[in-house]
Amino acid sequence: MRELSLEDIEALAVGAWVLGTGGGGSPYLGLLNMRQLYGEGHRVQLMDPDALADDDMVAVVSNMGAPLVGQERLTDAANIARAVTLMQEYLGKSFRGIMSVEIGGNNGVQPLMAAALTGKPVVDADAMGRAYPEAQMTSFAVGDLRPWPLTLVDPRGVEGIVAKVPTWKWMERLSRKMCVEVGSTAATCKAPRTGAEVKRWGIPRTTTQAINLGIAIRRAQREHRDPIEAILQNEDGRLLFRGKVADVARRTTEGFLRGTTRLDGLDAWRGSTMEIAFQNEWAVAWQDGTPRVMTPDLICVLDTVSGEAIGTETLRYGQRVTVIALRAPPVFLTPRGLEFVGPRAFGYDLDFRSVFS
Amino acid sequence: MRELSLEDIEALAVGAWVLGTGGGGSPYLGLLNMRQLYGEGHRVQLMDPDALADDDMVAVVSNMGAPLVGQERLTDAANIARAVTLMQEYLGKSFRGIMSVEIGGNNGVQPLMAAALTGKPVVDADAMGRAYPEAQMTSFAVGDLRPWPLTLVDPRGVEGIVAKVPTWKWMERLSRKMCVEVGSTAATCKAPRTGAEVKRWGIPRTTTQAINLGIAIRRAQREHRDPIEAILQNEDGRLLFRGKVADVARRTTEGFLRGTTRLDGLDAWRGSTMEIAFQNEWAVAWQDGTPRVMTPDLICVLDTVSGEAIGTETLRYGQRVTVIALRAPPVFLTPRGLEFVGPRAFGYDLDFRSVFS
Repeated sequence: MRELSLEDIEALAVGAWVLGTGGGGSPYLGLLNMRQLYGEGHRVQLMDPDALADDDMVAVVSNMGAPLVGQERLTDAANIARAVTLMQEYLGKSFRGIMSVEIGGNNGVQPLMAAALTGKPVVDADAMGRAYPEAQMTSFAVGDLRPWPLTLVDPRGVEGIVAKVPTWKWMERLSRKMCVEVGSTAATCKAPRTGAEVKRWGIPRTTTQAINLGIAIRRAQREHRDPIEAILQNEDGRLLFRGKVADVARRTTEGFLRGTTRLDGLDAWRGSTMEIAFQNEWAVAWQDGTPRVMTPDLICVLDTVSGEAIGTETLRYGQRVTVIALRAPPVFLTPRGLEFVGPRAFGYDLDFRSVFS
Repeated sequence: MRELSLEDIEALAVGAWVLGTGGGGSPYLGLLNMRQLYGEGHRVQLMDPDALADDDMVAVVSNMGAPLVGQERLTDAANIARAVTLMQEYLGKSFRGIMSVEIGGNNGVQPLMAAALTGKPVVDADAMGRAYPEAQMTSFAVGDLRPWPLTLVDPRGVEGIVAKVPTWKWMERLSRKMCVEVGSTAATCKAPRTGAEVKRWGIPRTTTQAINLGIAIRRAQREHRDPIEAILQNEDGRLLFRGKVADVARRTTEGFLRGTTRLDGLDAWRGSTMEIAFQNEWAVAWQDGTPRVMTPDLICVLDTVSGEAIGTETLRYGQRVTVIALRAPPVFLTPRGLEFVGPRAFGYDLDFRSVFS
């Protein structure tokens, strides 16, 4: 257990945005919340998952919905904290700690906001190692853990509970429709996990991973080294493409932000084109019509100069961007894992081929 | 408290279908359930609302959704009983009795099915005195009672709870989307009511009213008298139109069955046309282009020969039908009542004028 400094949290926001692979929402508003909460004297403890007792109960939080909506409906720490306390009331039990379902984007910061307001520690783990758009795209679903219950909170005073579902896909369907009805964004507390479940099926120490990644990027920026090179070294990633955003087609639909972008190549990629399809997160990228990289490999679109991540909601015409790939957690590379997060789970009739294989 | 006979329930099915004003779903499948439950030895007690203690808790049930779907997804008593027991688990309290939110159509029979399986009595009251399509169209909403919580059950094992909402309209919005996602039909247990609330704001003795109406219709049929005349006498209603169904336009949308029908006049109405718009229930009828009768007056479309009700989902080309109006419960005739169930609440820019005024 260690106390997170505000510097840790600033780095977390930078690193989690890279791991968000375009989704999870910009961490900027979560960071503003954390600066304010730290200014008021709140502090957050980070707890290693191995420190959990097997029968501890862990809250699994995320903000759900279409990232673009987050630019109008701003982040308020009280919402995610209420999703957690509503779940405690429903269960009649108290949580030992709070973790994120996804370390990527603003959802890497969500458990910190809930932790600051409830006084509980953040568990250093998530269930994606990145961000994914749908409820069944988690290591917990791959592990066939119980998908229910879920609590959902909207700041106008709407509170819903999915009490039971037969499958993870039904959890996604029902909670997504509730989310859409309150404006395609909602604070949620997913199915609670035991300490044993987190230790067996959680992706461990991804908060620390995101903090370290953010520190590496910030240090490279300060020292006028290439921050993208720092990311690739830190995460053992692959450089895939460099170019200029030539087109973005984007629509908020069914509770998701969907679309495609086209990049015209620069430098070594001049004359070449990359097209990337997204559903909240970058899903599949084609170079000159041929699949180049696909989920579950992490596709990260970065500002070529600053090395900072660009989200599917903030990408715009004319930006100079660099596309890299990072490694997926091993749990998603099994045949069962690929059923949940491989290209076919996103509707693409492609066999998964990793850029790292 | 008296035990309902199977003859009472057969009559209830006939009378509730008339009071359904086209909606609430055909009571036929509920009746089949009750015949089977009575065959297995179950019995249902009917309890006068005045016998409730002020702090008794009463379950308020209904099947929610688009009536047309009920012709494919058949009625099973276990679903509505589960909505009640889920609510008991959520509240941590036991119900004294079970009432319907609407006496009209199959929802007049729903509390009997839940009562048979849980052993609790049916409270002789509802909150509409008929059927209405939306959650906020109740005497409880007019009385500004608390709209939450609600439990929703789908037989595939989907169970949802609306834990809190700021307004009745939000209850309608969120529960409707959940209902649509499970197929536009779901068993629900609405916001529980205290005995004091039922006595103050419930529409009393509508189960008895529907049974007596059904008995009157059946007796007229047996004695070869005009059953429609029997309804008009029994309920002090008005004969409005007689004709033949010339057209039906019907669509299942947003969890409702919406559309219009056109009737070509017969007998005294030959040469005249009636058009009726519906949202689950008959809402407004125009004779030769002029509004003739509108909600909250009960608009009932009956088979001209048998006098039995025809639902918005069973109306079809060529049927000989008679349109009558019955009186709305007084609670809906106040300015506040009309805000919830007057023609403007259904989107028609009409001032309410009752055929009884």
